[in-house]
Amino acid sequence: MSIDPRIDSRAAIGIFDSGFGGLTVMKAVQKLLPHENIIYFGDTARLPYGTKSRETILRYSMENASFLIQQGIKVLVVACHTACSFALEELQQKFDLPIIGVTTSMIEQIGQLSPRGKIAVLGTHGTIGSGAYQNAIKKLLPKAEISPIACQLLVHLVEEGYIDHPITAMAIFEYLHSLKNKDIDTIILGCTHFPLLIKQIQQSVGPRVQVIDPAQFCAASLQKLLKARQLINPDKGLPSTQFFVSDDPEKFRILGNTFLGHPLPEVTSLKNINYVFEI
Amino acid sequence: MSIDPRIDSRAAIGIFDSGFGGLTVMKAVQKLLPHENIIYFGDTARLPYGTKSRETILRYSMENASFLIQQGIKVLVVACHTACSFALEELQQKFDLPIIGVTTSMIEQIGQLSPRGKIAVLGTHGTIGSGAYQNAIKKLLPKAEISPIACQLLVHLVEEGYIDHPITAMAIFEYLHSLKNKDIDTIILGCTHFPLLIKQIQQSVGPRVQVIDPAQFCAASLQKLLKARQLINPDKGLPSTQFFVSDDPEKFRILGNTFLGHPLPEVTSLKNINYVFEI
Repeated sequence: MSIDPRIDSRAAIGIFDSGFGGLTVMKAVQKLLPHENIIYFGDTARLPYGTKSRETILRYSMENASFLIQQGIKVLVVACHTACSFALEELQQKFDLPIIGVTTSMIEQIGQLSPRGKIAVLGTHGTIGSGAYQNAIKKLLPKAEISPIACQLLVHLVEEGYIDHPITAMAIFEYLHSLKNKDIDTIILGCTHFPLLIKQIQQSVGPRVQVIDPAQFCAASLQKLLKARQLINPDKGLPSTQFFVSDDPEKFRILGNTFLGHPLPEVTSLKNINYVFEI
Repeated sequence: MSIDPRIDSRAAIGIFDSGFGGLTVMKAVQKLLPHENIIYFGDTARLPYGTKSRETILRYSMENASFLIQQGIKVLVVACHTACSFALEELQQKFDLPIIGVTTSMIEQIGQLSPRGKIAVLGTHGTIGSGAYQNAIKKLLPKAEISPIACQLLVHLVEEGYIDHPITAMAIFEYLHSLKNKDIDTIILGCTHFPLLIKQIQQSVGPRVQVIDPAQFCAASLQKLLKARQLINPDKGLPSTQFFVSDDPEKFRILGNTFLGHPLPEVTSLKNINYVFEI
């Protein structure tokens, strides 16, 4: 890949998500690329995405991407698995900048990650119903035995702060007990809320099953892309991190702390995201 | 009240809700007023309302009301408790037609309903956080002892179809066990999803506590209003029932069956509800 003279390497990385979950992806990006400026958009006025239709999520994703691109970002990370499942290809076709989906890189390495190709994919109704991840794995590992499980309630349990809680333990058991006789070797956390439950999920399936958070792979893939295109930020000072949301900024700051693991700076409320872009 | 010559008694009753829950209110209205035409709007692309801010819910409510009023309705029922809590007064000020909130009539009768004024109000984060119902009860019963409880997870459990399920039983216990020593006489179901769990909630608190679904009172109040204004539909044939949603109509038809108790007719998808009205 060559340098794109139109793109400024000092420009920010844009990340969007339906709300809070994408902060787990942002955390992985910040760990690997601590000098990059970031603009994060959480569509908190219209979340969750996981229970809504392809058509609606496609429209929301186009609007979110359009807003971030108008801010002059150099690359876009789609941090929401449901948006990736329904809209990643369309976004890549529509917009003229590099766009990375949260799971793409991890799935490209699935052959090395899953020794026996016995894989469970956990996600929202939207992600699982779309079949996107199942199809992408099948392309690379045609003999893979895939168990897709829609774990919608886990999203809401995390947002309610029920992490170490018997209700969450019961919900995890309910969703995963069907895996018992399937000899699974790998579980993919196909929703950005689920890494907050990685300990509980790992405990539920035992130590022989590998539980994968795609965020680390996404961050590594982003780093590789920026290096290849010579788009790494040359400034090594404290980078700028901007947060935009479509609903209440204060709630985002409070809940964001749980996802990011440290307090958030100022959050800007962006009303009427829907007016930004029409498809 | 006198007849309003501008309003056609054959016009429909308009009902809006964040999505599905308002169908429990519509069911009560249809039972009492079986010859009335109804237009229902469920804002399924932006649900839930219960976790979002006052400002956002006010905007959504104005847009929803405006859409229904453009359809020529004779009266508007705000079937969503969160929308009532945040937006009922503003809607009544803004629009020139009778507007009824789902809980108003029940709260007006709270003195007769709750013999000792020891009342628990169950609702979403928005409804409980607004303090609207607590304040309205206090105005009528200044000595009432009110226990407000935000039961957000119950919304998601109902939408996932977890009605007779141990996780739901555990969540109900979790939310209601603080009432144990409060000698409550009345529980108000301040969210339209909760009537689907009325049996489970009643079992949890025992037979001495009265569990109230405000929908019946709302329907009775609507009937009274229509009679007083001579707005009862004079046609006694099969009325028309129209459904509009902002997301996938098919999903609404399927889940709507659970709420309404019988199959729904055609549902129309109304995209870009947000473009309809600007406040």
